[in-house]
Amino acid sequence: MVQSSVPPAHWTSSTRCTEAQRSVVLQSNLQRRHEVKFTPELLKDDGEAIYEAIEHAPALMLTTPSVDRIYGGKLRQVARRFGYAKPCGYHVLECREDAKDMHQTLKICELALDVNLRRGGTIVAVGGGVCLDIAGLASAIYRRGVRHIKVPTTLIGLIDAGIGIKNGINFRGKKSVLGSFYPAELTLLDPAFLRTLPELHVKDGLSEALKMAIVADRALFELMEANAMTLLPTRLGSTSGHEVIARSVKGMLSALSDNLYELDGYCRMVDFGHTFSPFIESTTAYKVTHGQAVAMDMAISATLARQLELIDEQDFERILHLMLALGLPIFHECMRASEELHQSLKSIVAHRDGALNLVVPTGIGTYEFIHRASDMQCKELESAVTYLEFRHAAVRDRCLVC
Amino acid sequence: MVQSSVPPAHWTSSTRCTEAQRSVVLQSNLQRRHEVKFTPELLKDDGEAIYEAIEHAPALMLTTPSVDRIYGGKLRQVARRFGYAKPCGYHVLECREDAKDMHQTLKICELALDVNLRRGGTIVAVGGGVCLDIAGLASAIYRRGVRHIKVPTTLIGLIDAGIGIKNGINFRGKKSVLGSFYPAELTLLDPAFLRTLPELHVKDGLSEALKMAIVADRALFELMEANAMTLLPTRLGSTSGHEVIARSVKGMLSALSDNLYELDGYCRMVDFGHTFSPFIESTTAYKVTHGQAVAMDMAISATLARQLELIDEQDFERILHLMLALGLPIFHECMRASEELHQSLKSIVAHRDGALNLVVPTGIGTYEFIHRASDMQCKELESAVTYLEFRHAAVRDRCLVC
Repeated sequence: MVQSSVPPAHWTSSTRCTEAQRSVVLQSNLQRRHEVKFTPELLKDDGEAIYEAIEHAPALMLTTPSVDRIYGGKLRQVARRFGYAKPCGYHVLECREDAKDMHQTLKICELALDVNLRRGGTIVAVGGGVCLDIAGLASAIYRRGVRHIKVPTTLIGLIDAGIGIKNGINFRGKKSVLGSFYPAELTLLDPAFLRTLPELHVKDGLSEALKMAIVADRALFELMEANAMTLLPTRLGSTSGHEVIARSVKGMLSALSDNLYELDGYCRMVDFGHTFSPFIESTTAYKVTHGQAVAMDMAISATLARQLELIDEQDFERILHLMLALGLPIFHECMRASEELHQSLKSIVAHRDGALNLVVPTGIGTYEFIHRASDMQCKELESAVTYLEFRHAAVRDRCLVC
Repeated sequence: MVQSSVPPAHWTSSTRCTEAQRSVVLQSNLQRRHEVKFTPELLKDDGEAIYEAIEHAPALMLTTPSVDRIYGGKLRQVARRFGYAKPCGYHVLECREDAKDMHQTLKICELALDVNLRRGGTIVAVGGGVCLDIAGLASAIYRRGVRHIKVPTTLIGLIDAGIGIKNGINFRGKKSVLGSFYPAELTLLDPAFLRTLPELHVKDGLSEALKMAIVADRALFELMEANAMTLLPTRLGSTSGHEVIARSVKGMLSALSDNLYELDGYCRMVDFGHTFSPFIESTTAYKVTHGQAVAMDMAISATLARQLELIDEQDFERILHLMLALGLPIFHECMRASEELHQSLKSIVAHRDGALNLVVPTGIGTYEFIHRASDMQCKELESAVTYLEFRHAAVRDRCLVC
């Protein structure tokens, strides 16, 4: 488990020994298993896969009001099998982005205490990104870490939040500034949940899928282009829809594998769309959803790349066209405060340990980093935003005419 | 960093593939360096060792009111070198056991945000166990983990809290029920801090040293026996005192090395003295200190071992004698509520994932586990407590006569 470089015997004469002998270095080595499993129609057989995964140990199941409304009956059946009589290990959490905070996290810890959840117990989260985030942090700190199983029910959960090992909550108006790296032991993926997902949430997920497509997967981009008109109405229920999910998951897993704990630096391709978006989300008090904000961020980043002539006109147009075809927003009036938007990069720079590392597309499936904040002036940002407002207005006006 | 057992290529056809192919297992592997360094007279050269360790990166230094009163001048000098103009990266925290909670933890996160501490930044904690605990958890969750340096200023910090990788805060009246495993990158040990440590706190530390001696280090026990009268008045400043520290540190490091993240089970020798103590601490609203509670717990555990004839009369008497000689308490009236004390084991059993794993001494330097809660009836506990009350009264009466 741990290799001690030297037996610490010299401590017995530590006051007299030489400088070099005065320290002991422990190399801690934490290994964790993180399994992502495709389990279609998970709830058809009374959630057997969930029950099996828990290995009959005590568990606490958390979900959101909307998931509870549709799937609550089935989920309660599974929870009853966990072995709790009263109080039951099933709870519906308030899961709004503006309530993704320590208060909600501690609420879960209280529920866990109420059912006397022990250390080998499991916290199962069935819900979207917010639910998975809060439950993930609670799993990480309750009794210094219990087992965690994620069952994403949104597209964003299936291809992003449910797969990554990071969790995060908002604090003092800063998005995801508190959290931890805590791999779920198991993630169960079931696209059947998408059938009942509101259109807005499907769009949020399409935004994350498009993120992967633009900077890392040309084939995925072309697949989305070819099916732009059907993905949303079919809730990705077609063969092409499933392939979009599968390719996005694959891309995310492969990006994660390279730098899971982000110890090898903060130059991450998956941060595409995640540089301006925290400002857009928090400045609109989370009325703009994560996926919408990511879309606008991608639009800004692509426009900056075009201005810097890092991407050619044709590829740039393909990106904007696909965004608009999928119904993703490219502009919000809060972006007009380009000075504030530029200032907000300070916080991102702190989060990426001193560098900006803005990901910009250089074609379909390729990207580049703008590493330094000083390489991107407020003026350039302003001009990108002005351009996007113009394009946005053009689409809106066309719509008015139709 | 991460080995993906199979390239997740089959995800592209996941809807049609066989059951076995439908999952991807990532084996995450988190390696962290945890150095414990003996740095006598740390503050003599303006805390050069601290400054060097921080590697000139931004840092936030936290300390306690009592440490600030004595060493604040020097510490502020070090903090000024961190490179902050205003606001300064030096803060005095409220550090009482009954305020070791999420509120204090979030207070640190706020301070870190105030100085815009970035991800490669460091949180330095200079203080006792409580300060190290709160700062440790804040370091673990702020920006999902920043660098952490511990400078323990109490005996309990030097030989226990400063060396372990666990941190914990109290929640809903339960001790250390929230927290994390988060190795400090560096722990700097300087016994010079003990010169100004109040007697009560020195005793708390002696209790933890004795813990290690009784169950794992006969030589340490004999060293403490031979110096029982001088350890406290000299604040362990003598050669023997330093040896007591060194041996305790060595014992703790070696115990940790075996099972650092406690993934190999919850049978831990270092849990000796830590089974009944959480109840004693919380039921007295932390008026009984951690070290005192550990001492009483060791007395109960040793008496239970004697009742079960797991330890002989002579070794049992040596243990009780040494405890009394060091001025450690063996009884508190809260222990009379033996039924409540017995009930409190439920929480311990949850924390040790279903088992009691009570450590009891079977001689000087040896131990055994009482694994199951059912092997220790309330009646036996009551009789142990009655015996200790009697011994305690005998000592108290003798004192009145002197």
